[in-house]
Amino acid sequence: MTDRLLMKNLRLMGGAPVDVLIENGRIAQIAAGIAARVGDAVELCDGALALPGLVDAHAHLDKTLWGMPWHPHDQGKSLQQMIDTERALRHELDMDPARQSARQVTLALSKGTTAIRSHVDIDTDHGLRLFEGVAETRQRFADVMQIEIVAFPQSGMMIREGTVELMDRALRDGADIVGGLDPCGIDRDPKGQLDAVFGLAEKHGKPVDIHLHEAGELGAFSLDMILDRTESLSMQGKVTVSHAFCLGMNDPARVNAQLDRIAALGVSLATTAPASRPVPSVAACRERGIAICAGNDGIRDTWTPYGNACMLERAMLVGLRNNFRADVEVSWALDTCTKDGARVMGLEGYGLEAGCRADLVLVGVEALSEAVTQRPQRRLVVSGGQIVARDGETLDPWQTA
Amino acid sequence: MTDRLLMKNLRLMGGAPVDVLIENGRIAQIAAGIAARVGDAVELCDGALALPGLVDAHAHLDKTLWGMPWHPHDQGKSLQQMIDTERALRHELDMDPARQSARQVTLALSKGTTAIRSHVDIDTDHGLRLFEGVAETRQRFADVMQIEIVAFPQSGMMIREGTVELMDRALRDGADIVGGLDPCGIDRDPKGQLDAVFGLAEKHGKPVDIHLHEAGELGAFSLDMILDRTESLSMQGKVTVSHAFCLGMNDPARVNAQLDRIAALGVSLATTAPASRPVPSVAACRERGIAICAGNDGIRDTWTPYGNACMLERAMLVGLRNNFRADVEVSWALDTCTKDGARVMGLEGYGLEAGCRADLVLVGVEALSEAVTQRPQRRLVVSGGQIVARDGETLDPWQTA
Repeated sequence: MTDRLLMKNLRLMGGAPVDVLIENGRIAQIAAGIAARVGDAVELCDGALALPGLVDAHAHLDKTLWGMPWHPHDQGKSLQQMIDTERALRHELDMDPARQSARQVTLALSKGTTAIRSHVDIDTDHGLRLFEGVAETRQRFADVMQIEIVAFPQSGMMIREGTVELMDRALRDGADIVGGLDPCGIDRDPKGQLDAVFGLAEKHGKPVDIHLHEAGELGAFSLDMILDRTESLSMQGKVTVSHAFCLGMNDPARVNAQLDRIAALGVSLATTAPASRPVPSVAACRERGIAICAGNDGIRDTWTPYGNACMLERAMLVGLRNNFRADVEVSWALDTCTKDGARVMGLEGYGLEAGCRADLVLVGVEALSEAVTQRPQRRLVVSGGQIVARDGETLDPWQTA
Repeated sequence: MTDRLLMKNLRLMGGAPVDVLIENGRIAQIAAGIAARVGDAVELCDGALALPGLVDAHAHLDKTLWGMPWHPHDQGKSLQQMIDTERALRHELDMDPARQSARQVTLALSKGTTAIRSHVDIDTDHGLRLFEGVAETRQRFADVMQIEIVAFPQSGMMIREGTVELMDRALRDGADIVGGLDPCGIDRDPKGQLDAVFGLAEKHGKPVDIHLHEAGELGAFSLDMILDRTESLSMQGKVTVSHAFCLGMNDPARVNAQLDRIAALGVSLATTAPASRPVPSVAACRERGIAICAGNDGIRDTWTPYGNACMLERAMLVGLRNNFRADVEVSWALDTCTKDGARVMGLEGYGLEAGCRADLVLVGVEALSEAVTQRPQRRLVVSGGQIVARDGETLDPWQTA
């Protein structure tokens, strides 16, 4: 890492051309015509459009099969079938969690992602092995990828004795966030699970991020229980609900009332904007000031053959799902993959202003919307002031075999 | 074009490696270890996976702004607003239909598309100018892109006097198919419009392809009227309904009865698998033997900023919309962009067998699903026996400035 990196002629968010000076991993100056000093590393950016580092706020770094031989998919489609299939396949296939998470991080860097919130499975079959593998990757990439780990009880908490204790250990050992999953649908004990989740959060002083796939009124019921605990335990601003399909399903009066309460409690939402399921409306969230962030979820894993770790592609899918066409709307889709993700993760110094952490992604397009709709190869990715990828390829030492 | 093109070591649809000999634009032989003769052009394919030429069965070649300066989107979202905006912008912007359609065809070739059914606007404002421009492109690319033109009354038939006469002229002058559009929603005269559409079809002996965006029971009503005319006029096998969102909206009993009738009448469906609207189920169509094909619809035009002419990406969107995860399901998504499109267009000699027209697309992936989920750059595209694109770039003389 050089002391100073001077980036010449780039357009921040598609604005007028400027130069950006980076010192000590931070944006030191933004101005036209910054003069280079002897010894500066200089990058000529040819008027490329610069985005802030992309944020994948809902990932599963322990699940990907990226870089492994093709795994044919034929498991059933129920959540329970996919959970059980995966737990078994982790044994059958050689799914080393440190290697696989590192492969995904390497890939994500090449696409311009500089921060990831990863749920990591904690279960009584695999113990803390998956958490430890991802924690190893977090350590290895600490300078260039900000990774949060959610201790995620993928196989259920109440139905598999010993899971709560394992989560407790993971949180003691460095997991950042308490996860949860379908308190009715998977655990069949919403009170038991949510008391355990919020109990762990209180004990460790850590936030919560709960997967909620439950449909319709069942999902709304579980969501109400989550909001009740958020309120009564003064967890305002520390709770994320991921997916929340029910907010795209129920009648508008029910949905709007829940969104109002979500806004009042400072609860965040994470979406993957799936095309095959209803989703919370990004516009309805924005109107209320709710932070709604996006994530790629699992990429090429035992659940799904899709995904490539590109958060510009996720922004496109958010845009398509929400029927965003106007330029301002497409920028909202991009926000879910940039600043709203940063807001949910609580990233310090995020943005494209002097003083911010120097995370920049350069793409050769004219307009901001094009970055989303065309998802061009990333010309240059800078993370924490370091050049980590060029022309779509992650550079050494951030490559993973 | 050389007389013989020998492609060595490729895997048809991911099967065992073979060699493919192409003579006179056709696949002459498929076998292991075909010996090259002196003078043969030889392509070493390194075990790449070969797909048949991709088929974009619902496009709008006269609409794209591809290659033009970025056009900010801020029009309203109603169908009528988008129609009116476009008609005006065609004048304000320099949307030359021959140039723009050629640009899209050049782009589509680079992505492996070798056949396109394009709706082309016919209206009293622009007359036959758009049709003539696309017809010029059809002529220019005749050797390498099979283009069908639908005479499409985008602005309405009954509400704009003179439109039916213009369509009549277009069909006389070489348009292949009679188009139509929301007989209730746009024309407010379903009997009048459909009698005119089917009257033109009868007069010119040409098939029909009708855009049907109408929702719920209204869409089902218009669909019934289309099916009635298909039956009474013995148009079995000659009618396509595009979009047909109502088949993803109504209650299952209503939908299933209509699908059964669609199957019995040999009517085809075309889908773009939008994430923000209900769609006909691909699986439900396949169960009944209904040909359901896919198209990219408009790409980067005054309606939408999305789209890149890639039919592997469309296959991915079909897969995501239908929640297709298993390998066999992903192959169904691919079918909508390959053989089902060919079936709807009635392409002669389509496929990867000896005797077929030599349209092949090579991608460097292990499994068929990966071609859809990863959409890698096309290594080589062969159309009508000619190499038209390599490493993602269309070759001369098929480039368009």
